[in-house]
Amino acid sequence: MTIVLTAFERSPDGGKGLARDTRVRWALEEVGQPYEVRLLSFRAMKEAAHLALHPFGQIPTYQEGGLTLFETGAIVLHIAQRHAGLLPKDADGRARAVSWMFAAVNTIEPPILELQTARLFERDQPWHADRLPLVEDRVRHRLEQLVVRLGDADWLDGAFSAGDLMMVSVLLRLRSSGILEEFPVLAAYVARGEARPAYRRAFAAQWAVNAGRRENGT
Amino acid sequence: MTIVLTAFERSPDGGKGLARDTRVRWALEEVGQPYEVRLLSFRAMKEAAHLALHPFGQIPTYQEGGLTLFETGAIVLHIAQRHAGLLPKDADGRARAVSWMFAAVNTIEPPILELQTARLFERDQPWHADRLPLVEDRVRHRLEQLVVRLGDADWLDGAFSAGDLMMVSVLLRLRSSGILEEFPVLAAYVARGEARPAYRRAFAAQWAVNAGRRENGT
Repeated sequence: MTIVLTAFERSPDGGKGLARDTRVRWALEEVGQPYEVRLLSFRAMKEAAHLALHPFGQIPTYQEGGLTLFETGAIVLHIAQRHAGLLPKDADGRARAVSWMFAAVNTIEPPILELQTARLFERDQPWHADRLPLVEDRVRHRLEQLVVRLGDADWLDGAFSAGDLMMVSVLLRLRSSGILEEFPVLAAYVARGEARPAYRRAFAAQWAVNAGRRENGT
Repeated sequence: MTIVLTAFERSPDGGKGLARDTRVRWALEEVGQPYEVRLLSFRAMKEAAHLALHPFGQIPTYQEGGLTLFETGAIVLHIAQRHAGLLPKDADGRARAVSWMFAAVNTIEPPILELQTARLFERDQPWHADRLPLVEDRVRHRLEQLVVRLGDADWLDGAFSAGDLMMVSVLLRLRSSGILEEFPVLAAYVARGEARPAYRRAFAAQWAVNAGRRENGT
């Protein structure tokens, strides 16, 4: 059955790979599954047809036959459970990889989202300059703990897994803040993720979608 | 093999059920699995012995034989995959329930965490009163979408699942803000969760841990 994802027709980041379809494209590339993409305008994302697939009006969605999924964590886990390449073979190792998937989206990503919200939506507020350091320090606190656990390993728990895929994807959102570079261990970890052939193919595919927008300067 | 959880020796909420071990206790009660609890002081949570189990120095952890897990989403999913009662039998339904688990922790909980941070850690900041309505509106935006999807159904997708368990647990964190009561559909949904015998047993167990603290007024 054909796998069909939805993605932004015009990604807010212009194709830097931060839109969440990149995570799903990456997972599909790691396991060698082909997919198609249906592009959506911002207006279409808020219309009833899309809300029937995604209750929060976002991308990506994942459709395969009669199955529709939303939430990148759930989609990546679904792919990882059905195809070899993103989870260890032993049951305990698989459960631990899932711990890292949830750690990425529920422990590391929330303060990063808060930082992003502050920088995007509160930058004109009178408190922005005074408050930003507090928000940044909440991100740093989690990164310090992650550095300790990662140590000098390449990946979080043995071989590369869906846990690393999600964690690298979440950390990538920090790049424009400069905070990632304060933690060389994590900057190198993210670079290892970006160097994977599957990531490069995923990045290139979403970059190509946004090429017209960049050339038009729109 | 015995299941051992960690929990707060003295929960910051005094036993209102908001500490995250409640989610795991609830899941274990739903599937009828006994468990033991090891209580930790705040100091012990930051010590090396606990950080070896939980890289972010939090509770709960889940130990079963040689397996150690952290992140409530991962623990609840592990329990749900191994015991009947928290996931549908068909593969597509199971994948959709996992979508709702991730939606709880990655779409609904982040703005709730931001609201909690604002109320707990920024309430003495000069911007608090002006900023709070912005944060509250970000929570409301997600709740409005959740109301539309839930409609007049009892649960998010057919029978009660691990997705509902996580969503109800996340929404419970809103109660002290008064925002949950602005959405009667969601207040009733949360009340249905709280009325489940398994939830009541889980709540009672964590309440008992904190009884001494309440009686001492400490």
